[in-house]
Amino acid sequence: MTAFAELMAHQRRTEALAAVAGRLGWDQETVMPRGAAEERAEEMAAMEAVLHARRTDPRIPEWLAAAEAPDVEGARALALIAHAHRRAAAVPERLATELAQVTSLAQGVWAEARAAEDVARFLPLLTRVVALRREEGQAMAAAGVGGGDAYDALIDGYEPGARAAEIAAMFARMRPRLVALRAAVLGKPAPRALTGQFPTDGQMRLAREVAGAFGYDWTRGRLDLSVHPFTSGSGSDVRITTRVAEDDPFNCLYSTIHEVGHALYEQGVAARMTFTPLGGGVSMGVHESQSRICENQIGRGMAFSVWLHARMQALFGDYGLAGPEALHAAVNRVHPGFIRTEADEVQYNLHIMLRFDLERALFSGALEVADLEEAWNTRFAADFGVPVTRPSQGLLQDVHWSAGLFGYFPTYTLGNVYAGCLNRAMRADLPDLDAHLAAGAAQVPVAWLAEKIHRHGALFPPAELITRACGAAPDETALLEDLEAKFGALYDL
Amino acid sequence: MTAFAELMAHQRRTEALAAVAGRLGWDQETVMPRGAAEERAEEMAAMEAVLHARRTDPRIPEWLAAAEAPDVEGARALALIAHAHRRAAAVPERLATELAQVTSLAQGVWAEARAAEDVARFLPLLTRVVALRREEGQAMAAAGVGGGDAYDALIDGYEPGARAAEIAAMFARMRPRLVALRAAVLGKPAPRALTGQFPTDGQMRLAREVAGAFGYDWTRGRLDLSVHPFTSGSGSDVRITTRVAEDDPFNCLYSTIHEVGHALYEQGVAARMTFTPLGGGVSMGVHESQSRICENQIGRGMAFSVWLHARMQALFGDYGLAGPEALHAAVNRVHPGFIRTEADEVQYNLHIMLRFDLERALFSGALEVADLEEAWNTRFAADFGVPVTRPSQGLLQDVHWSAGLFGYFPTYTLGNVYAGCLNRAMRADLPDLDAHLAAGAAQVPVAWLAEKIHRHGALFPPAELITRACGAAPDETALLEDLEAKFGALYDL
Repeated sequence: MTAFAELMAHQRRTEALAAVAGRLGWDQETVMPRGAAEERAEEMAAMEAVLHARRTDPRIPEWLAAAEAPDVEGARALALIAHAHRRAAAVPERLATELAQVTSLAQGVWAEARAAEDVARFLPLLTRVVALRREEGQAMAAAGVGGGDAYDALIDGYEPGARAAEIAAMFARMRPRLVALRAAVLGKPAPRALTGQFPTDGQMRLAREVAGAFGYDWTRGRLDLSVHPFTSGSGSDVRITTRVAEDDPFNCLYSTIHEVGHALYEQGVAARMTFTPLGGGVSMGVHESQSRICENQIGRGMAFSVWLHARMQALFGDYGLAGPEALHAAVNRVHPGFIRTEADEVQYNLHIMLRFDLERALFSGALEVADLEEAWNTRFAADFGVPVTRPSQGLLQDVHWSAGLFGYFPTYTLGNVYAGCLNRAMRADLPDLDAHLAAGAAQVPVAWLAEKIHRHGALFPPAELITRACGAAPDETALLEDLEAKFGALYDL
Repeated sequence: MTAFAELMAHQRRTEALAAVAGRLGWDQETVMPRGAAEERAEEMAAMEAVLHARRTDPRIPEWLAAAEAPDVEGARALALIAHAHRRAAAVPERLATELAQVTSLAQGVWAEARAAEDVARFLPLLTRVVALRREEGQAMAAAGVGGGDAYDALIDGYEPGARAAEIAAMFARMRPRLVALRAAVLGKPAPRALTGQFPTDGQMRLAREVAGAFGYDWTRGRLDLSVHPFTSGSGSDVRITTRVAEDDPFNCLYSTIHEVGHALYEQGVAARMTFTPLGGGVSMGVHESQSRICENQIGRGMAFSVWLHARMQALFGDYGLAGPEALHAAVNRVHPGFIRTEADEVQYNLHIMLRFDLERALFSGALEVADLEEAWNTRFAADFGVPVTRPSQGLLQDVHWSAGLFGYFPTYTLGNVYAGCLNRAMRADLPDLDAHLAAGAAQVPVAWLAEKIHRHGALFPPAELITRACGAAPDETALLEDLEAKFGALYDL
């Protein structure tokens, strides 16, 4: 065997084991008995130790030095392995294992603390998670990852090549226009909201229908319930979860479409890339662009509302909104709210900026975990004009920090920005798109995304992939212009 | 760290990883999308390679040579690790990995072949499984496992210390009495059978109630559906599955009680033994004794029928049987049937003897896989008096062989024999047992089993454990006498 073949065989088994760890994560969030949390944490730590040992195998740099890539995909695989090795080798096994164990435990404690509205129960573990992630970021930064900055090294794990300073600059350009749009919209009367009770059975049927309309492949996936909706897996086993509130069917509906967007990306990666470094989405930002374009540009568009209104009527009868226009207005209703995942397109990115700024302060040392709740609540009141009265509306609303996902939040807004660019290019390529969407054929835009994005897996770096798809480098202009146009029309600005 | 501590730390992580592999197995049989079979096989193979490498780690014999056990449990742990190492070290990694991959694939193909009634679709993979398991048995036998015999080496993996020749001798003592009892019973009129339709919802409610009556801990487990009911996991995550046929509620009911019996054993092992070699049932035979005593000696007894009749009435109204006596007769109805897992106590062990004799012939070379279906059908007609007309009634009825479980079937009858011994001892210790059972308090006998069996985990070898619990070495007499007494009374022999 050549060095290249040996390295790829080693990597293939590592990828298969990483998929196993992913399945465990799915299990933990959906079906695991609650008494199993401690043993599961030990199991996750054991898997992490195995993966870390494989990812830091001393033969990897030797193979890398000797390997000759047979083609473009092979060359990209080598580059990705080298990058991942640089990151992993910088982190001692003790730290990697402890992080796996502590974050596994912390997710259970977060769920309990959230249910009990008890921040104090969560803070000791969160303090531990932040300390461990800071240590990890510093170790990787010392090895040159993220340009030598600890927080950038964490961001790099989700969005390779992205830097906090550039993100902050983009956020600074976006923020005034979003703030102005928010103020203008909230100065107008709100459209009619949906009220009433929508049985769980009907909501889950709609979720399944909608997933099918987007082309989600049920032979390679499944839909379950979890506290926080998520997508898990790649290749032939890409599972999604959703949640149901009987008084708010849009929560289940758009959570499902969002996760379907993620899942379609993973299901759409070329099969030959399975269990290689190319066999999944290239970055969290590009991933989020796929979920967002499905959820917002397609799912919350006027054309799709025509089909959706008919399905709502079929499942729920006279459900309280008179027609597609009223549905379109209701699903795009802008109102003050606490929960990021339920936020409208106007305010969503303001939630992200809040978290991003808090994270930067935590990692620069300007903010301590003990003061995080107060900092959150102060910033929230300033940005959104309403006080947080319960921790589940504030600091405890997201699972992310319990899972150690620092540096992850900004990729949500990067995803929105990419989605804005892709939507422009897609509409230019598909002039009759709205006719398809009005008939429920969401597979049509998904086929465009599959061709431009999904099938490539991790072959191209994020910015290059978006540039190839759109014919121009990604930039926030399209997103902001489209938001101003859409909400300008909806709110008669 | 001492050699003992180092070895136990190594073992602990191995046990945690083995638990992960077990979770994957549960996932595959219950929730996995059907398109994921091939990738899952590769994931299972990757896990098996990791486990095999850990179990054959060259440091293990060094640690074993230097380790000093601090106590009795430590000494037993060392003995179990040494035995497992002898088994694992005899098997090349290539073979262990291939077995994991082929059996993972074969289970999917078995399910398809069974649904399609198509033996030919299954035979190529079964041939491969038999060849690999034969190779594995020979490799272990060459290292002295199983007294040097390949099939005994496989049996030893499920029932340490058991030998095919001894089992055959015991089966030879049992067979004439079971054949005579079967003939006598089938010469009498059958009691009234249960007919009608029993909705899935009600059956699942009953399954949950019954599991609760036996003391199954829902905070450390869950109940799902699968083609073949099974129990998975140990410690704080012990999951059971069942199946539902709307025209036969006893199938779901007794499958559930059976799996609950297995699960109670795993849930009842002392918590300090978790992730040690002692942290689970000591053998498949002892495991089966726990499921069987719950299913048969308790669950199909007259006293428990009093409670069960009331629950059937509460859930299904006038369900077709007039009282506890009629229910007791119906759940113990002896009738010709094809399916082992649905067989009554009189005929069950005859199914096992069929499979045991076919396996011995396959492994001695007297029988080829190509001729297995004909051999099965010929033997079945001879033993049970009816011809097999569909493969799902015959060769394709059990998942076991697709999973490579050769040498496993005889442990079912060993379990019945142990259950017969334990039932005698338990009734001597608990004179008011039937009063508890008539009130549905199946936790009472389970507490006796927990004290005598469950809490010890794998601390004592199977025969010693049964001898300690019963005050005498295990022997088939109690089982046979009790069967003759029970069915003699039911059938007025």
